[in-house]
Amino acid sequence: MEVTKTLAQFVVASRDTDIPQKVRHEAVRSILNWLGCAVGGCRHETIDRALAALKPFCGPAQATVLGRGERLDIMHAALINGISSHVFDFDDTHLKTVIHPSGPVASALFALAEHRAMSGATFLHAFILGVEVECRIGNAVYPSHYDVGWHITGTAGVFGAAAAVGRVLGLNVQQMTWALGIAATQAAGLREMFGTMCKPFHPGRAAQNGMTAAYLASKNFTSSECAIEAPRGFANVLATARDYAKITENLGTTWEVALNTYKPFACGIVIHPTIDACVQLRNEHKLKADQIEAIALKVHPLVLELTGKKTPRAGLEGKFSVYHSAAAAIIHGEGGERVYSDAMVRDPGVIALRDKVSATIDTNVHEDAVHVAIRLKDGRTLEKHIEHAIGSLARPMSDADLEAKFRALANGILSSAETDALIKLCWSIEKLQDAGELARAAVPQSRTEYSRTQ
Amino acid sequence: MEVTKTLAQFVVASRDTDIPQKVRHEAVRSILNWLGCAVGGCRHETIDRALAALKPFCGPAQATVLGRGERLDIMHAALINGISSHVFDFDDTHLKTVIHPSGPVASALFALAEHRAMSGATFLHAFILGVEVECRIGNAVYPSHYDVGWHITGTAGVFGAAAAVGRVLGLNVQQMTWALGIAATQAAGLREMFGTMCKPFHPGRAAQNGMTAAYLASKNFTSSECAIEAPRGFANVLATARDYAKITENLGTTWEVALNTYKPFACGIVIHPTIDACVQLRNEHKLKADQIEAIALKVHPLVLELTGKKTPRAGLEGKFSVYHSAAAAIIHGEGGERVYSDAMVRDPGVIALRDKVSATIDTNVHEDAVHVAIRLKDGRTLEKHIEHAIGSLARPMSDADLEAKFRALANGILSSAETDALIKLCWSIEKLQDAGELARAAVPQSRTEYSRTQ
Repeated sequence: MEVTKTLAQFVVASRDTDIPQKVRHEAVRSILNWLGCAVGGCRHETIDRALAALKPFCGPAQATVLGRGERLDIMHAALINGISSHVFDFDDTHLKTVIHPSGPVASALFALAEHRAMSGATFLHAFILGVEVECRIGNAVYPSHYDVGWHITGTAGVFGAAAAVGRVLGLNVQQMTWALGIAATQAAGLREMFGTMCKPFHPGRAAQNGMTAAYLASKNFTSSECAIEAPRGFANVLATARDYAKITENLGTTWEVALNTYKPFACGIVIHPTIDACVQLRNEHKLKADQIEAIALKVHPLVLELTGKKTPRAGLEGKFSVYHSAAAAIIHGEGGERVYSDAMVRDPGVIALRDKVSATIDTNVHEDAVHVAIRLKDGRTLEKHIEHAIGSLARPMSDADLEAKFRALANGILSSAETDALIKLCWSIEKLQDAGELARAAVPQSRTEYSRTQ
Repeated sequence: MEVTKTLAQFVVASRDTDIPQKVRHEAVRSILNWLGCAVGGCRHETIDRALAALKPFCGPAQATVLGRGERLDIMHAALINGISSHVFDFDDTHLKTVIHPSGPVASALFALAEHRAMSGATFLHAFILGVEVECRIGNAVYPSHYDVGWHITGTAGVFGAAAAVGRVLGLNVQQMTWALGIAATQAAGLREMFGTMCKPFHPGRAAQNGMTAAYLASKNFTSSECAIEAPRGFANVLATARDYAKITENLGTTWEVALNTYKPFACGIVIHPTIDACVQLRNEHKLKADQIEAIALKVHPLVLELTGKKTPRAGLEGKFSVYHSAAAAIIHGEGGERVYSDAMVRDPGVIALRDKVSATIDTNVHEDAVHVAIRLKDGRTLEKHIEHAIGSLARPMSDADLEAKFRALANGILSSAETDALIKLCWSIEKLQDAGELARAAVPQSRTEYSRTQ
C-alpha cells in the first residue's frame, strides 16, 4: 500500500470546486481564529527573544511579522508567526488528535502569499489540503504517537506545511512525494517542552521546515518515496501503533478541517470544562474567593497528565495548571490571556484559592467533561456537571464569538478600525485577488500609537 | 540525576589546557578529514539543488560555502557545508555509535568562525566539546535508538552543534541547559532516508538546528531543563533503552574524539572489510572480472541490513550495496568516490560481476571483519579473511593517508598549491589567531580554472 504516494497524488490532484461550502467556511473560521492568536501573541517576550537571536541571519524582506510589521525572509516569517500564534495556547484544536492544525499550515502560507502571488481561493484551498494532510497523518498514529511523548502539532504539522506550500508551488506527484519525505525526516518536538518557550516554537519550526521541504522538492531534492509507511519511516519510528487506512480512505470526501474547534480560554483544552463550570458557578452564585473552603474536581485522566502543575511559577506554566485555572476562573470570571500573566500566577489571592483546589481522576468523566463541587464556609456545597465545554464540537463558538475573541486579542496592537477591516478581509478571503493583503493588513499603521493594555 | 545540567556544566567549565595533546591531535585529524570531504562534495548535484531551493531566502554574506565560495548567512552555510561533507558518505565514524561526529559540529563551527572572531584554539576546544556531547548522548542510547530507525548523526548531532556553538557564544550553565533542550526538541532524521539526498541533509540540518538552539538560548529563549532524561525527554521518547552513566561518568577524563575513525572508502563503513579483502585479492592474484565464477561473502548481520541493496540504480545507492562495492573493488582496485558515480553503478561490466556476488550472514563474523571466497572459472577458490578493515581503530589511517585522501578529494576543485596550503593551515589550527582563515582558504582562487576531472 503506497501511503505517501497516495497522499501526494491527492494533494496534487485536488480541485477546490469539489470542496463543500460548509467545509470552506470552517477553514475561513480557522484562519480568522489563527490570525487573531498570531496578532495577539506578537508582543510576547518569546517573540522578542526569538527575533533578537535570529534577525542577524534573516534574508530579504519578503514577508510580514504579523501584528509587528518587521519584514523577514519567508522561512523566518513562518517561524516567528508560528511561534506567535501558539504562544498563548489559544489557537485551534483538532480534538481527535489534539493537533493545533492551523499553526504549521497558516504560518507557512501567510509568509508564502507575500512572496509568490496567489489568490485568496488558492490560499484557502492549500490551507484545507495542508490541514487534511497533517490531521490524517495524526489520525493514523494517534494516540500511541502522542503517548510516546511527541508534540503532535510539531511532528504532524511539518507534513501539513509541506503539502500546503508544495501545492501552491505546483509540485508534481514525484516532487510532492519527496516533499512529504523531507518533511518526515524533520518531524520533531517533545511534549517535555510544554510550559516553556519551546512549545510555541514547535508549530513555527514545523511551518519553516515544511516550507523548506516543499522548496527543496521543487528543485528535485530527493527523499524516500514511502517516508510515512516504510519500516523505518515516520509511522513506525515515531509511534507504537498505526492505521494507514486513516490516511488513505475517503480522500476528498471527508474533510478534517470541518472538525476543527476554537478555544474560548487561553490554556490547555482539557482545562476548558473546569473553567466553564467555575465561571458558571461564580456567576450563578455571585461567589467570592473568601466564601470558599474547598474546590473538588473530578476529571478525565488526561487533565492531570497534561495540566497537573500544582504550583506554576510563570504565566506559561499556568496554562498547564488546572488548579490555577479554576482559581482564576472563580476570582476573575474568565479564562482569557490576562489570567495567564506572570503576575496573575504569582498573585497571593489566586495562590491562596489555588491551594484549595483538588482534582481526582474519574474514568467515567470523558475528556470534554468535568464535575465541580465547591464547599463553602457556610456549609453549603455547590455542584456543576459540564458534559461538553463551550468551544467543543457540541457547543461550538459562533462566528460572532470568534470575532469577539479576535477583537480581544488584537486590542492594544491594532486600532479598532484596523481590527474591523482585518476581520472583514478575512471573511472575504475567497474573493481576494492577492492573498498577501491579509498579512499586510495585520500590522498597525502607527506602530507606536497602540500598546498592549491588558 | 541531572543529566542535561551535568553535561551543560561540563561544557561551560571545560578548559582546553586539560585536554591531552594526543586527543587534540585526533581532533585536528578529524577536522582535516572532514574538510576534505566537504570540499570534495561541494560540486555534487545535491548541493546544487539545495542551493537552488534555498538561496532566495538566505541572509547576509557571513560565511563561505567550502570549495565553492558562495557566501551565505551562517545558518545556511552550516546547512550546505554539512550536506557537502556527508554527500560522499566518506566522512568520519565514531564506531561505538556509527555517528559521523564531525559533520554537525564542524559545519556549525566553520560558519561561526567567519562571523564571530575566534582563535584556532577556541575552535578546536569547542569542536572537541561538541563531539564529546553528541557521542556521549549517542553512547547512552545506542543501539536501541539506532535500531528504532533514527539516523543518529542527525539526532545526536544537533546536541553537538548546540554545545560547540554555545561554548563559543559563552553561554552560562542555565543557557547551555536550554540550548541542549532546544536541540533535543529538534532531534530528527530517519534511516529510511539512506540512499537519498536526505541522508547528507541530516548532519547539515543538525548543524543549523544546533546553532539555532545556541543562539536562541543566548537570548534566554527557554526550554526544559532536563530535556535528555525527563520522562518525555529525548532518551525516553527516541530510544527503548538508555544508560545515563555513559553521559555523566568520567567527564573531562575520557574523550570520545580519540575514538574517531576515518574512511579509506567512500561508502557505508560496514562494507569496508569487503572492499579491503577484494582489493587485496585482486592485487595479490592480478584478478580480472572474466576469470570469476562467483564471489561469496560471509558478513556481520548489519552488513545486509545497512548495505544489502542488490540492484542499486544510482551512485548514492551504490554506497549502500555491498554487492556493487565488491564488484567495483575487483574491477577497479579501490573504493573511492569515483566507483560510486551513477555511470559506474550502471556499467554493464560492473553489473555483470555484481550479479555473481552473494552474501550470507555469519554471526561469528564481527562488524569490522569479513570472509571472502572467490571461485574462479579454472576451479580454484581464493580466500581472504579480514579481521580489522583498514581505517578501523586497530588499523587507523596515518596522517599521510589522511593527506592523500584529502588531495584526492580536493583534486579538480582546488589547485595543488591551494590544497597544500589548506592542509598546512589545518594541521596548524591551534596556532591560528583567526579560525575563519580555514574556510576562506578552502575556496579556489579562480573558480573557473579547475573543474572536477574524475
